[in-house]
Amino acid sequence: MRQLTQYLTNHTWAFMLMISSVTSSVYALPDPGMEIDPERTALVITDPQNDFLSPDGVTWGVVGTSVTENNTVANIEALLKAAKANGIPVFISPHYYFPADHGWKFEGALETLMHNIGMFDRTGPLNLEGFEGSGADWLEIYKPYIDDGETVVSSPHKVYGPENNDLMLQLRKRGIDKVILGGMSANLCTESHMRELMERGFEVAVVSDATAGAIVPEGDGYQAALVNFRFIANAVWTTEQAVQKIQQATSSN
Amino acid sequence: MRQLTQYLTNHTWAFMLMISSVTSSVYALPDPGMEIDPERTALVITDPQNDFLSPDGVTWGVVGTSVTENNTVANIEALLKAAKANGIPVFISPHYYFPADHGWKFEGALETLMHNIGMFDRTGPLNLEGFEGSGADWLEIYKPYIDDGETVVSSPHKVYGPENNDLMLQLRKRGIDKVILGGMSANLCTESHMRELMERGFEVAVVSDATAGAIVPEGDGYQAALVNFRFIANAVWTTEQAVQKIQQATSSN
Amino acid sequence: MRQLTQYLTNHTWAFMLMISSVTSSVYALPDPGMEIDPERTALVITDPQNDFLSPDGVTWGVVGTSVTENNTVANIEALLKAAKANGIPVFISPHYYFPADHGWKFEGALETLMHNIGMFDRTGPLNLEGFEGSGADWLEIYKPYIDDGETVVSSPHKVYGPENNDLMLQLRKRGIDKVILGGMSANLCTESHMRELMERGFEVAVVSDATAGAIVPEGDGYQAALVNFRFIANAVWTTEQAVQKIQQATSSN
Amino acid sequence: MRQLTQYLTNHTWAFMLMISSVTSSVYALPDPGMEIDPERTALVITDPQNDFLSPDGVTWGVVGTSVTENNTVANIEALLKAAKANGIPVFISPHYYFPADHGWKFEGALETLMHNIGMFDRTGPLNLEGFEGSGADWLEIYKPYIDDGETVVSSPHKVYGPENNDLMLQLRKRGIDKVILGGMSANLCTESHMRELMERGFEVAVVSDATAGAIVPEGDGYQAALVNFRFIANAVWTTEQAVQKIQQATSSN
Repeated sequence: MRQLTQYLTNHTWAFMLMISSVTSSVYALPDPGMEIDPERTALVITDPQNDFLSPDGVTWGVVGTSVTENNTVANIEALLKAAKANGIPVFISPHYYFPADHGWKFEGALETLMHNIGMFDRTGPLNLEGFEGSGADWLEIYKPYIDDGETVVSSPHKVYGPENNDLMLQLRKRGIDKVILGGMSANLCTESHMRELMERGFEVAVVSDATAGAIVPEGDGYQAALVNFRFIANAVWTTEQAVQKIQQATSSN
Repeated sequence: MRQLTQYLTNHTWAFMLMISSVTSSVYALPDPGMEIDPERTALVITDPQNDFLSPDGVTWGVVGTSVTENNTVANIEALLKAAKANGIPVFISPHYYFPADHGWKFEGALETLMHNIGMFDRTGPLNLEGFEGSGADWLEIYKPYIDDGETVVSSPHKVYGPENNDLMLQLRKRGIDKVILGGMSANLCTESHMRELMERGFEVAVVSDATAGAIVPEGDGYQAALVNFRFIANAVWTTEQAVQKIQQATSSN
Repeated sequence: MRQLTQYLTNHTWAFMLMISSVTSSVYALPDPGMEIDPERTALVITDPQNDFLSPDGVTWGVVGTSVTENNTVANIEALLKAAKANGIPVFISPHYYFPADHGWKFEGALETLMHNIGMFDRTGPLNLEGFEGSGADWLEIYKPYIDDGETVVSSPHKVYGPENNDLMLQLRKRGIDKVILGGMSANLCTESHMRELMERGFEVAVVSDATAGAIVPEGDGYQAALVNFRFIANAVWTTEQAVQKIQQATSSN
Repeated sequence: MRQLTQYLTNHTWAFMLMISSVTSSVYALPDPGMEIDPERTALVITDPQNDFLSPDGVTWGVVGTSVTENNTVANIEALLKAAKANGIPVFISPHYYFPADHGWKFEGALETLMHNIGMFDRTGPLNLEGFEGSGADWLEIYKPYIDDGETVVSSPHKVYGPENNDLMLQLRKRGIDKVILGGMSANLCTESHMRELMERGFEVAVVSDATAGAIVPEGDGYQAALVNFRFIANAVWTTEQAVQKIQQATSSN
């Protein structure tokens, strides 16, 4: 192996990585971590909407198991509560489809699915008829946090990531460069937000049980996301860890 | 479930999806597919470089098993050969790190790893000293295809996706809006390219055995990618299918 | 001058360019032009809203002269009418500010101005109270074109360009790669849309009298835009030319 | 005029703006300014290359007058010197064209021009043959600043802005969110960098005499840029002001 001796000497982890790939018993990937700076850190929640999180939502049949097992609904609320209590700004990146979106000429697999089942459908960009309580609306218990006049609601993302909405600009315009990320669904919008935020130079800590994923015959979206969170993010926390870190970082100020 | 009757009536697949989530025996996700239009389709290969694909590369210890099992090296070559033989333009999105990149103040887990092991390192953006045959160089057998004066080599991506290089502009400037995607590694650069290309309105068919992923104690990168390819892409093909489709699409012209 | 002889020989225009810089009498810049392909071309209008185009709008004091001189209001309508009559899809990129946008920590000069005068203000992203007839609403005469159930209204841009909304995705999802561009205001949103669309690989023909600009002591925004349209765009047309080209391109189909 | 009384009362500047549009004697646009935080501010120079700044460069015939009048070459050097002396990091965003770029199927006016005259041409992305001293190389007097092992040279931009290179990621990865911007040419790459940086949430102070523009029969690129700098940027400084502000901001630390 190229320059093996050199990097064995210099980089202990590289050695551990190779060992671990044999023994599967050593924690091998680096874990860079993310320090919460209260002035520059925000909580971002993707798709906290009925169609993902309510038993009445159109995807409950495939995400319900994962949402229940992770205690996702309560965990997202715990993050919202901790952020609000400790002055960490909250940003919501919602998912809406308008009638014009159904005129797209091509779509990937899950996009096709979402359009077919009318997921996140709204009457129009300038029309709120039927929105209240619909699958596109916030889960009822989150409304006090989102509607408090402080939370920033970005324009809707349209595929999975924030490439086509104003979430990143809203973060930057408030001096945010670190994101605590939760929401739905794990390997789709949450992971695409993690990836895009990192490509644009944000640090991202993903909260692994404040999300959940679809389980279908083709695969377990939640398990796939867990692997990618661990490979890619700056940090992966549980909700309990995230809440604790938020409290510690803000109380020390 | 909301409006169950209506979408059971209108959308047979939704019904199958729910059934399948119970029985795990029915093919459930939509499979939109991608039609190759020879005038508007390109082959894109990420990171066809020694550090991923050569037994001498710095990551062989963690990706070697997956590369070998998938026959990745030969499959990428088969794609290159089929594209060149049938007039499908080829684009390469490489991964290079320059000395200045080691001055970054924060990095995600795999970024930290790549920097630590000197992966894809080059002497400088305007310096090719030591490049030939290094871990950052093309795998030797791909050079005839890449150095033929026709293949477009984009500037390097720096995290995992094409957000920070000119790949997408190069594709658009040649009228390409459909991409056949292969290369390394599955859940990192290949998947980030798939996601970003789709956010920017390209159709993407991923070639699932013309890639491979790292297997570490924290997870199997290749398996995670397979799930996400299937959930997200417009199409997932084997190399054999991709080659056949390229031949059919171009011969019919 | 470097290799003067060579490029004088090969490139007649380079010679003309040098001459013209002395005489100011020869048309010097290349004029690549844009061919309308009805299947791949759309009309994009930026900010067709009261605050720019109505004498009651908050900026009329500085843009009114230019809007009147260019006959901008009627010219935008002529474009909308020609597009609709000939099957060219229409996209609107609006400008809205929500209460949260007033919490930004820094702004450029015109951003500061727009926020200060309450330009394009709306009550909230999920609130249409007071919207009808406000400065953020469409100019009344455009409503039949925009509200016809076919026009695509993107999410709002937030600075000047389409970097932070879904306009470009909406165009790509319908196979559009050529844009006929008009709207307000010339050197701000219209020019930023032109620049960003071109960076992302669209061809852009700007309609130079279907826009207008602010004239303030610091400069004439319309004149600045005219220079940059001519330097940068693929084509610069008058409304009359644009309408004629739309009719010709679509009738020949 | 809508709510005239109210905003006359609340917003003195709005009143001044209207007055000034008549008298042309009052400074009307807001001037938000930019405070240099030495930890978060960088100097960015676009295209400090022979083809723009050397009398031997291919564009000297059209930019030479503006470069000479502004004292651009010396002013850019003064910025580089001040930044280096005071610990402000320096980033260069170069412009290169490779043989593949000449295969683009469409181009705007100036893109066509640049390709036609062989501006910024290099032999290939992995080929430095003939680069030294060419039109694409740095102006000789800047080399000590750029080649000092500290300056970050991004990958090349390909149209005018940093949308297709890694400049913004490089800035973010070092915690930079404020940019002092100079370089060539005023209304093309410099202005497109200003616009894109601002869309992505950077603050930008443009140095108005550390740039210059082409003057052709179709218009004066420098004058157009001056208008847009003033309308859009967070601040517009002379080189003298910029150097002074850099010194003050860093000495107070």
